[in-house]
Amino acid sequence: MLPSVSLLESFQASQMSFMLAIHLLAIMAEAMSGALAAGRRNMDIFGVTVIAFVTALGGGTIRDMVLGHYPLGWTQHPEYVYLVIAAGLLTTVVARYMIRLKRVFLLLDALGLVAFSLIGCSAALELGYPGVVVVMAGMITGISGGILRDVLCNQVPVVFRRELYASVSLAVCLLFLVLRAWDVDHDIGTAVCFAG
Amino acid sequence: MLPSVSLLESFQASQMSFMLAIHLLAIMAEAMSGALAAGRRNMDIFGVTVIAFVTALGGGTIRDMVLGHYPLGWTQHPEYVYLVIAAGLLTTVVARYMIRLKRVFLLLDALGLVAFSLIGCSAALELGYPGVVVVMAGMITGISGGILRDVLCNQVPVVFRRELYASVSLAVCLLFLVLRAWDVDHDIGTAVCFAG
Amino acid sequence: MLPSVSLLESFQASQMSFMLAIHLLAIMAEAMSGALAAGRRNMDIFGVTVIAFVTALGGGTIRDMVLGHYPLGWTQHPEYVYLVIAAGLLTTVVARYMIRLKRVFLLLDALGLVAFSLIGCSAALELGYPGVVVVMAGMITGISGGILRDVLCNQVPVVFRRELYASVSLAVCLLFLVLRAWDVDHDIGTAVCFAG
Repeated sequence: MLPSVSLLESFQASQMSFMLAIHLLAIMAEAMSGALAAGRRNMDIFGVTVIAFVTALGGGTIRDMVLGHYPLGWTQHPEYVYLVIAAGLLTTVVARYMIRLKRVFLLLDALGLVAFSLIGCSAALELGYPGVVVVMAGMITGISGGILRDVLCNQVPVVFRRELYASVSLAVCLLFLVLRAWDVDHDIGTAVCFAG
Repeated sequence: MLPSVSLLESFQASQMSFMLAIHLLAIMAEAMSGALAAGRRNMDIFGVTVIAFVTALGGGTIRDMVLGHYPLGWTQHPEYVYLVIAAGLLTTVVARYMIRLKRVFLLLDALGLVAFSLIGCSAALELGYPGVVVVMAGMITGISGGILRDVLCNQVPVVFRRELYASVSLAVCLLFLVLRAWDVDHDIGTAVCFAG
Repeated sequence: MLPSVSLLESFQASQMSFMLAIHLLAIMAEAMSGALAAGRRNMDIFGVTVIAFVTALGGGTIRDMVLGHYPLGWTQHPEYVYLVIAAGLLTTVVARYMIRLKRVFLLLDALGLVAFSLIGCSAALELGYPGVVVVMAGMITGISGGILRDVLCNQVPVVFRRELYASVSLAVCLLFLVLRAWDVDHDIGTAVCFAG
């Protein structure tokens, strides 16, 4: 029995590493999207860092404040803060080469949207909120970082004009709920959401 | 005795239904005002829904977050969320006929302002906050939904330019406090506020 | 022994009065800066008061909401609210003479930034948050009142364009942390920060 247990454990551990890697990638992608937007508005290095932080961690912050889920995630994981600052500063250096990386960047952005939406749904579900709040928590996590970024850059949020982002986030959240209702194993559900 | 008790109960029940009906009307009115503002900025269906939600439930959300009153109201009453989404979507359909309904709409808007201000005062009072915080909680509930709407639509909030809204909300909150101080029965106080 | 104890107590009391005086001065300075910005946008008396409130107490409010530190400071100290309203209304009267007082005003503004940053660091430290969160709490307290002011006035926040404010706040917070790490007495640390 022991070998199989340890195999299962190592499988689960690798899955957790996979989810963590996606989460970190998502945070980096959002931070870079924030830094790019701030750079376009000719902000200084501090503005770039704040907008990167707000874009990457603002969605989760608003979700936790709405759900009353204290302490907030990033206050317990300083490494997220360092990652966001590093990604923001890095972006100011490589911004001129970003045009060629546009496809990579769009992919990371989409990945971030899906990952953040799933994380938001999970958080609300664990706190025992009803279905509609779970969906809204997912969408808040996925989208409100970008809304804060656009408000601070004095623009009408792009998510209110381009349906795609919101639709993807909504679809991911609903799929998450449906799979949970069918009692599908959580990990498989997550995998399906990413595949979908 | 029994008949009179049941009469009192039915009277109280009808009063509660009355308050609930006004609350629901107020939420609908605010959601429609948000949806109209979003429509004017050429937002898509998602933008309209978010702005409707933020306008209708944002004031109470900010109040509860400021007062530390968790869980937030709408997370426990999913029916509010459905009502807001329905009102927002309905508005996109009937927006072209709204010009003729302008008087009805202004009336609903004023009703919403008064109802929200009263609800905000009650919430802070029940949590034991001092008088000035009760007044501010009332005004936050009555007005900040509209402020969020205007910020997300990239405009200077209309409430900062037209004194009327803020004055009405302030007057309602002060009247509420004065009536409480005179130890007037809560229900009568509410009725007087609406009559005023 | 008694005389020396009472001397120490009176010294500590005078220090606390000193800190309180600086805190109140800082709140007043921020309220006036908010009222001036609102006046420049032709807001009415209510807009001026709200912007004054948000500029002066918004930073501490956001910090406490992020740290989950309830009840919020100003809900327990109504005198702060009265002070802010008074400072806001006073500014509308004396605004035309403010040009001559510009130096005094800049000094008060800088004092406010330093005081708010220190207060924010202390609050997070007392709640047991890690170092990077302490620094961020200090900067949130020092700077986000001004960010809210600029967002409500429909402008790109000035702090994202002029590095000075953010740099001063960051330096104060880091100095605060360093002095704490060296186990310097809190009061001396505070004094050094103000001298620096």
